[in-house]
Amino acid sequence: MDEKTVNTVKKARDRLLATAKTLHMAVWFEDDTGGHLEQGQAPFIRQDGHIYIYSSQLSAHIRGILAGGETSFLLIEDEATAQNIWARKRIKFSARIEEISRDDARFEGVCDAIGTAHGEVMQLIREFSDFHLFKISPVAGVLVTGFAAAYQVKGEHFELIAHLRSS
Amino acid sequence: MDEKTVNTVKKARDRLLATAKTLHMAVWFEDDTGGHLEQGQAPFIRQDGHIYIYSSQLSAHIRGILAGGETSFLLIEDEATAQNIWARKRIKFSARIEEISRDDARFEGVCDAIGTAHGEVMQLIREFSDFHLFKISPVAGVLVTGFAAAYQVKGEHFELIAHLRSS
Repeated sequence: MDEKTVNTVKKARDRLLATAKTLHMAVWFEDDTGGHLEQGQAPFIRQDGHIYIYSSQLSAHIRGILAGGETSFLLIEDEATAQNIWARKRIKFSARIEEISRDDARFEGVCDAIGTAHGEVMQLIREFSDFHLFKISPVAGVLVTGFAAAYQVKGEHFELIAHLRSS
Repeated sequence: MDEKTVNTVKKARDRLLATAKTLHMAVWFEDDTGGHLEQGQAPFIRQDGHIYIYSSQLSAHIRGILAGGETSFLLIEDEATAQNIWARKRIKFSARIEEISRDDARFEGVCDAIGTAHGEVMQLIREFSDFHLFKISPVAGVLVTGFAAAYQVKGEHFELIAHLRSS
């Protein structure tokens, strides 16, 4: 990759990270009744490369995460602002997932930050015991910035690794 | 559900169906190397309740669909237009999937319609042999129209069945 391409791609990545409000999750998990494929999304905040969500186990995909299922994450620009609807800018990634319990020293501070970012609903749901706080640390993924423009990324800051032929 | 609620929910559903431009897919499939969880999205058109996409097998989720993997679909409103970022309006559903081959009598007409809806890229990719045309016929799903407002839906027209306690 030449330096100009690298700079353009990094700029697109950083804009997506700065503007995206919700995190998509696809989850595969198995239980006594068989395998289950679920998906959902949640508002998130990002601090030092770690992504935090606060979601209810009433949603099947959260039950899947709690059960240790395999999870694929996605950040994606809105349809309305996509320059090319055939190649919406996005990052698809795997991650380490840690639940932060209510008695953890970090719990209150992260919940405060989510409330600041995403509004008053947080005050309503903060005490609901069916909600769980998760710390999501990106490991590896694919960044798409346009048609035939897919890049391998790595780590919590989605460091650019290589141009890909397929995604 | 009272009639007023039903009408409000139907209106939200129909607006989402009329405005959404891309279809999200989560796919689980297995091959010689193990199980794979993938996700992606594609511009779609909808005709008589059937959804059509034209996508490349260079994307792993399309290879998963071609391999007969389990697939979960999602239509979702943009973040920017969501009244409540904690409960973006969406329909998550299962579907029957049929590939329409290039020599099928329907192929040209559907590709024309996708081109009309989603622009000139279609002319570029129409002859690319790694692209496949799929007919997706919704079977059952969950419609979310707001916080604690999830509804069971059924069939190609996402007929409203029941209010749900969880999604």
